[in-house]
Amino acid sequence: MLKLYYSPGACAIASHIGLEEAGADYEIEKIDLRAGQQRTPEYLAINPAGVTPALQTSEGVITQNAAILTYVAQTHPQAGLANLNDPFQFARLQAVNGWLASSLHPAIGKALFSRPALEGEAKDDAVKVALEKYDLAENHMLAGPWVLGEDYSMADGYLMVFTRWARQAALLDTTRFAKLNDHLDRVQARPAVQRVLAAEGIQAV
Amino acid sequence: MLKLYYSPGACAIASHIGLEEAGADYEIEKIDLRAGQQRTPEYLAINPAGVTPALQTSEGVITQNAAILTYVAQTHPQAGLANLNDPFQFARLQAVNGWLASSLHPAIGKALFSRPALEGEAKDDAVKVALEKYDLAENHMLAGPWVLGEDYSMADGYLMVFTRWARQAALLDTTRFAKLNDHLDRVQARPAVQRVLAAEGIQAV
Ligand SMILES: N[C@@H](CCC(=O)N[C@@H](CS)C(=O)NCC(=O)O)C(=O)O
Ligand SMILES: N[C@@H](CCC(=O)N[C@@H](CS)C(=O)NCC(=O)O)C(=O)O
Repeated sequence: MLKLYYSPGACAIASHIGLEEAGADYEIEKIDLRAGQQRTPEYLAINPAGVTPALQTSEGVITQNAAILTYVAQTHPQAGLANLNDPFQFARLQAVNGWLASSLHPAIGKALFSRPALEGEAKDDAVKVALEKYDLAENHMLAGPWVLGEDYSMADGYLMVFTRWARQAALLDTTRFAKLNDHLDRVQARPAVQRVLAAEGIQAV
Repeated sequence: MLKLYYSPGACAIASHIGLEEAGADYEIEKIDLRAGQQRTPEYLAINPAGVTPALQTSEGVITQNAAILTYVAQTHPQAGLANLNDPFQFARLQAVNGWLASSLHPAIGKALFSRPALEGEAKDDAVKVALEKYDLAENHMLAGPWVLGEDYSMADGYLMVFTRWARQAALLDTTRFAKLNDHLDRVQARPAVQRVLAAEGIQAV
């Protein structure tokens, strides 16, 4: 059976949502990031990078949300969560997921989760840089109602990670980010997402 | 025809190598990052994120190296540059590409290309963080001789971007990073890569 290593509310929730939306047969194991469980020898043997998510499969471990989401979509084609057979449409999905991982995540992560925490001007600067990336998402990456248009896809549960963090930090202004707010509400209203939130022991925001 | 927007020696060279290795029919257009051409209205209309690479296709623009590489592999299956029909093997490729984009690139980019340039302790710290990621690549991401094992894939020309930068900055120690050095030499020796370097007007390092 598939096993997802996750940390509640952290970015692994994108993969968790992907598995649940796909109707996959899987179990989850919690890695407590604050307690440093991602750096134990046991976990480093699973993912030497020392981060979640990691997905244990019968063939080996898969890391990176974008890779896990594609794997789950490809092995559960009936769920229709990625347009794998249309190279351009698949590229649109991969481009969004790649941008979330390489651009939005590092920017908001720096602003909110630097250790030691940023303060004063350094914090303001990091927030400003991050919010400019949310502007990009708001204005260019949300075809609406879902990221790629009419159909919910593996990009929606991934974008939601970062809009959720921003709303929790009171950064997701409802005017400046009207579409992102609407999208976050829509994602959180999905039954599969509600099951995932409950399984991770966290709330809709 | 496909058109790749690139900047010489910048990360778009991964996509450039992918196109050349695939035998694709494409043209290239240079975006001078130092001159700020990535922020002109003309280029922002192509890629609102204001970065290279971007690949113009007959259906629209694709951004992100990982997405472009998959698209090129999928539309040129005879080149065998990605194992698209084996979900686990494809996930291995996507995991490496995702890690390069979201982890190694930001870390080495911060160390070498921050504006204003880092100095003193801040620079040393950034280099240290980056080199720990090269350790991860050296010890866990290179099955050898190519990234995924016996077969050259779309991950090899992408890893080479960052080993090339590190060698140029005299950071790719030949003992600590023996496998990465060997890999970089192998990639640079490929005829397709030599054609790409020549087309971008740069040298093997
Ligand atoms: N691009 C990676 C990001 C993984 C990542 O940074 N995960 C964070 C949680 S959001 C983590 O585990 N951090 C633990 C640490 O850095 O110690 C992915 O998509 O899997
Ligand atoms: N993850 C992105 C990274 C794109 C990126 O950061 N490109 C850099 C060159 S290596 C760039 O164009 N920077 C210009 C700028 O930031 O102004 C990808 O794979 O396409």
